[in-house]
Amino acid sequence: MTSTAQIDPKLDLVLERYIDVSPEMVWTAWTDPEHLKQWFTPAPWKTVDCEIDLRPGGKFHTVMQSPEGQKFPNAGCYLEVVPNRRLTFTSALGPGFRPAAPAGADSKECAEILFTAIVTMEPKGKGCRYHVVAMHGEEGSRKRHEEMGFHEGWGAALDQLVALMQKS
Amino acid sequence: MTSTAQIDPKLDLVLERYIDVSPEMVWTAWTDPEHLKQWFTPAPWKTVDCEIDLRPGGKFHTVMQSPEGQKFPNAGCYLEVVPNRRLTFTSALGPGFRPAAPAGADSKECAEILFTAIVTMEPKGKGCRYHVVAMHGEEGSRKRHEEMGFHEGWGAALDQLVALMQKS
Repeated sequence: MTSTAQIDPKLDLVLERYIDVSPEMVWTAWTDPEHLKQWFTPAPWKTVDCEIDLRPGGKFHTVMQSPEGQKFPNAGCYLEVVPNRRLTFTSALGPGFRPAAPAGADSKECAEILFTAIVTMEPKGKGCRYHVVAMHGEEGSRKRHEEMGFHEGWGAALDQLVALMQKS
Repeated sequence: MTSTAQIDPKLDLVLERYIDVSPEMVWTAWTDPEHLKQWFTPAPWKTVDCEIDLRPGGKFHTVMQSPEGQKFPNAGCYLEVVPNRRLTFTSALGPGFRPAAPAGADSKECAEILFTAIVTMEPKGKGCRYHVVAMHGEEGSRKRHEEMGFHEGWGAALDQLVALMQKS
């Protein structure tokens, strides 16, 4: 396993936490759709659909739903699958590595943010070091992602992941 | 080895040829920079620089030069590396899987075309079946790539690859 992440503060967003959940449990939370739907989106938002084809080039698709019932699909594919250690996926490519269709003019209200996320989980004591880097191709994308609430959102989702897996 | 390509005629461009060059020789032509520079760009254009970090997420960078001396860099990364059988790379992601920076308004003269290429080489007789699929995220990209001369360009480059490797 080699880490391919070269973190660039201008382009990247990082979340790092030490949690009392084993790497194996974190892996299950990320790769089993029934688990993922229970923690992936901070309440009162929900993840109402999830498709996972766990291999490089395989589909990673989720649908988030706002409290008002509006649905927001997120399509992407996996790039690296290292069981219990690292999961890399991107919204810049869809299933089979096909480049994502550019957002049309009519999708302005939900401005597309292309990013690649590298989620790593390393054993540490009884739990693990949980580390996410979201890499963008330009500073504007990083800023929009940050303003949309990257840290709060991924942090709150992680709290839900921890709570879910601790009662599993 | 599983093929991840789902060919869509609206979005994809395909080149298929049976050539008298072994899969191993085709692999060398594609993955050794000194070989690649000799065949990759149809004359009188040249490939004047080439960097290859042959692993998923690794850099694939070339610089093409027009007969007038203008340089056109192409940055991307590898997605799948299956020695002597399949090489997949994309211009939608750069090294480390980072999404490509969007083309700026000042780069209109060389409109960016995001695509993922899957190059496969299968043993056939003394040579191989050589197959390339270039996948795009929208029909407009496929059309622009076709109008730029995808078939003529990749075909002429392949003629150069065959000539080079047959004298090796």
